[in-house]
Amino acid sequence: MNRANDTHGTVRLFVDEPLAAGLMCTLTDAQSHYVGTVMRRRPGDHVFVFNGRDGEWHGEVTAGAKRSVTLRITTQTQPQTITCPIALLFAPLKRARNDLLVEKATELGVTRLQPVLMQHAVATRVNAPRMRATAIEAAEQAHRLDIPVIDPPRSLAETLQLWDPSGILVVCDTPQRATCPPLAQCLTTAPGVTGLMIGPEGGFAAAERDALAACPFVRQAHLGPRILRAETAAIAALAVWQSVCGNGAVG
Amino acid sequence: MNRANDTHGTVRLFVDEPLAAGLMCTLTDAQSHYVGTVMRRRPGDHVFVFNGRDGEWHGEVTAGAKRSVTLRITTQTQPQTITCPIALLFAPLKRARNDLLVEKATELGVTRLQPVLMQHAVATRVNAPRMRATAIEAAEQAHRLDIPVIDPPRSLAETLQLWDPSGILVVCDTPQRATCPPLAQCLTTAPGVTGLMIGPEGGFAAAERDALAACPFVRQAHLGPRILRAETAAIAALAVWQSVCGNGAVG
Repeated sequence: MNRANDTHGTVRLFVDEPLAAGLMCTLTDAQSHYVGTVMRRRPGDHVFVFNGRDGEWHGEVTAGAKRSVTLRITTQTQPQTITCPIALLFAPLKRARNDLLVEKATELGVTRLQPVLMQHAVATRVNAPRMRATAIEAAEQAHRLDIPVIDPPRSLAETLQLWDPSGILVVCDTPQRATCPPLAQCLTTAPGVTGLMIGPEGGFAAAERDALAACPFVRQAHLGPRILRAETAAIAALAVWQSVCGNGAVG
Repeated sequence: MNRANDTHGTVRLFVDEPLAAGLMCTLTDAQSHYVGTVMRRRPGDHVFVFNGRDGEWHGEVTAGAKRSVTLRITTQTQPQTITCPIALLFAPLKRARNDLLVEKATELGVTRLQPVLMQHAVATRVNAPRMRATAIEAAEQAHRLDIPVIDPPRSLAETLQLWDPSGILVVCDTPQRATCPPLAQCLTTAPGVTGLMIGPEGGFAAAERDALAACPFVRQAHLGPRILRAETAAIAALAVWQSVCGNGAVG
């Protein structure tokens, strides 16, 4: 785990256990190493923990083995908020750029990462555990209270079939910019957007464009005059969505 | 040079020489290797070249040594456009994240990269030749016709003193979000924005916030409810600017 950039010095961990005052929470080996050895927290020190359901809590390091740290959950520091739902649909990328996409999308508030198999994609598989670990680390650093859902890769046809048509899916397709608005304008005029789709490095295939255009819940937008790498397009689209559609947290 | 992701297979090179029909242009050793060995272009094949002043041109590979490729400039493929001026002011980051910032900012149309020395920054120096090489490569891939200017690092005081006060500088400072609008809203209501400033990983110091607040040309905005890494904030700010303020190219 590369947490070296957390210059604030706070320790904030995602745990998959219930959180309430008085409960005990045993950290994983990697988390224990991070808390005890890297960040040198000692019995009596506090760290922050969250599980995506119960808000954020203070956990007090209890006496015990350095290799297996146990926390006593004390006080809630933040109630759980509901993150405004926004899915990112993207063709899997090669390792480093896929990591980057997951990290930045999580920072920017994505709630669902949906890999879609497309004809001109540079990768056909995803490493789901790696994506989840990257998302967890990004959420810990970004002070999020939840972790995005990571879907298995699906074909475009299946993805569109499974889409809840009550939400708008905006397809960001820069080469079509003569015929569609910039994303900021599209988001202002199309309320109820619940998904953003980015094309693969090699661009959408004609058949994919046709399939998307045939869906009543699809809108098209562009991301400016330059050719963006796929991960840049994903980050840019979420940044615009977040800034235009509010603060990304409801409730 | 990592150009392996240019899946379109086009060769597009920045050259620092005049471009006009009939002129000859000798590539650098690295460019020659890329054109002749990596991309296997042979005499008679065409590549694209641009220099930031004369638009984009077709260059025909001439017979000659593989290690030193010379192009004959033939026809203009795009006239020069003037990129809408937008400066990114940022505290220098550590190597990999600084590279990422430069790459993505260039893709998103930044015209000037201004490193600013700030109290809570994680780095105090920049590698200017490395930044320029990264920006050139990103511009080549993004089908830009120009390269951003890269300024030397300056103190915040000097940066503000040198700022052309006829342009608005928007400072993106997420912890202040109770008192300032989201960036998209700020850009809609403040015309004439020519710069975006991002804080260091450790956040702005109080004295830095005071110095910025005292400038008549400064506006404040926020980038949403989560804590963004510095390079994410820079990318997000430019993405929002590009989408809200038009297509990023004028003339």
